[in-house]
Amino acid sequence: MTTDATDVTETTGAGEAVTEEAVASLSATAHPRLRELLGGLIRHLHDFVRETRLTQEEWEKAVGFLTATGQTCTDTRQEFILLSDVLGLSMLVETINGDRVPGATESTVLGPFHLTESPARQLGDDIDLVGGGRPCVVSGRVLSQDGTPLAGAVLDVWQADPEGYYDVQQPDVQPAGNGRGLFTADAEGRFWFRTCVPAPYPIPTDGPVGALLRATGRHPYRPAHIHFIAAADGHTPVTTHIFVAGSDYLDSDAVFAVKQSLVQEFAEIDDPALAREFGVPNPFRQARFDLVLERAS
Amino acid sequence: MTTDATDVTETTGAGEAVTEEAVASLSATAHPRLRELLGGLIRHLHDFVRETRLTQEEWEKAVGFLTATGQTCTDTRQEFILLSDVLGLSMLVETINGDRVPGATESTVLGPFHLTESPARQLGDDIDLVGGGRPCVVSGRVLSQDGTPLAGAVLDVWQADPEGYYDVQQPDVQPAGNGRGLFTADAEGRFWFRTCVPAPYPIPTDGPVGALLRATGRHPYRPAHIHFIAAADGHTPVTTHIFVAGSDYLDSDAVFAVKQSLVQEFAEIDDPALAREFGVPNPFRQARFDLVLERAS
Repeated sequence: MTTDATDVTETTGAGEAVTEEAVASLSATAHPRLRELLGGLIRHLHDFVRETRLTQEEWEKAVGFLTATGQTCTDTRQEFILLSDVLGLSMLVETINGDRVPGATESTVLGPFHLTESPARQLGDDIDLVGGGRPCVVSGRVLSQDGTPLAGAVLDVWQADPEGYYDVQQPDVQPAGNGRGLFTADAEGRFWFRTCVPAPYPIPTDGPVGALLRATGRHPYRPAHIHFIAAADGHTPVTTHIFVAGSDYLDSDAVFAVKQSLVQEFAEIDDPALAREFGVPNPFRQARFDLVLERAS
Repeated sequence: MTTDATDVTETTGAGEAVTEEAVASLSATAHPRLRELLGGLIRHLHDFVRETRLTQEEWEKAVGFLTATGQTCTDTRQEFILLSDVLGLSMLVETINGDRVPGATESTVLGPFHLTESPARQLGDDIDLVGGGRPCVVSGRVLSQDGTPLAGAVLDVWQADPEGYYDVQQPDVQPAGNGRGLFTADAEGRFWFRTCVPAPYPIPTDGPVGALLRATGRHPYRPAHIHFIAAADGHTPVTTHIFVAGSDYLDSDAVFAVKQSLVQEFAEIDDPALAREFGVPNPFRQARFDLVLERAS
């Protein structure tokens, strides 16, 4: 076949033409928001390809990487959330959607381990079903933005064990529900439970995201934290962490999720009477903080 | 916990901060090109999230969609290539990398069905192992950019059956290798083989990409075509299609892969002697074109 000079000119400018064709193909989209999202995604991905002059081989590697990421996901592992996390996307989504009234608890990422339903527990229960860590009491109140206690607020809590593993990562070692609990605040909005002090730990590195971290010379560690989702009638739920003050990696979290307002002291308490009251050995650690919810608009 | 005015200000501007943190985390990347690609990808994806103010729920849907896309992939199905195709990304990558000298055959997308090795066949063989379509002879020459015939050039050919299915989509119906062949051009660079005239067909719509097409009101059809990868010593291989002139959907290909120079007549031939020579019933269709490769630099 022959290609004359006119065809060559068309080819040179064809990058933009493909983009316009792809965006125009969305014109019959029923939901305007879906059309907006896909149109924006197409434009940004096409600009990325043009700016970097992505090669065929690099495109093939990207397809292989995304395929492996999807196929690493199971009922108990979410590698795409992990990928979103290490690219800072999860934290960005949290940030732009977490613009709360002054005083309300800031949000941070969900993370990839909120995969099972937390077992309902009573206030004061120990969510550490295994032991071996430093005993700790976590307590505080769930409040509305004006300081009103939120009776009956629900707290979904999950954390890794002292070795840095969540129950779903070690079904043969940890009992299901270890490190997890669904608590209901009392009539004064108070919550308290026992656990062990969490430790910093690496995000899972045995999958495609781990390979990405190695290729980019990044460590996989997260500073020590406990996850919370706090919800109450008439209020916007907040998904957040409480970070342990003084933990390593607070300034280089692998998933960029640290906010200074979420860092709390896990103070050493030497008070035999209080220890007896909480049912923990003396001395113990205690973290006390309030979770403040924004009224739903 | 309390959040003072300073914290709130930080939160409001935090979107950009997360982006800069994520890009800065790549500073120890060993390969400069990987750093460039990931940095560009992070900036574009973050800009996309900021511009559209992507919600948490939309992010969750995206994670679910990508996970399902990965899990739809098998040894014989590549849903991520299909996704890249329907977003125009595959064609854009082809276009920016396919900037060839005037006269060289233009490239187009690989598509998701180049998953098995094509069986080696002799010139003149019939790649239609089932029958039932309109018999067709495809012939031409593989040439270098200056018109020199490329003896021993290798052609990898694949196409769908007359119902629009590739062999790998119907392992129980079509014999493996139906519609596929690996041909070696003769001493004058000539190739010829028998097949059936391909038909337009829908890309697979029973997976996440099909759901995306339905949500955007797009049809899934591709105009009729035969895939080729042509390769010869000292030349840049070309991945392309030959489209059937007059086919439906030439102006609305679901994967944006049509280039006018790749549209060829599949002419009706009424010539009993020629039919006998090719071993096809008379009348038959014939497509004749040359594939012109660029010298490797």
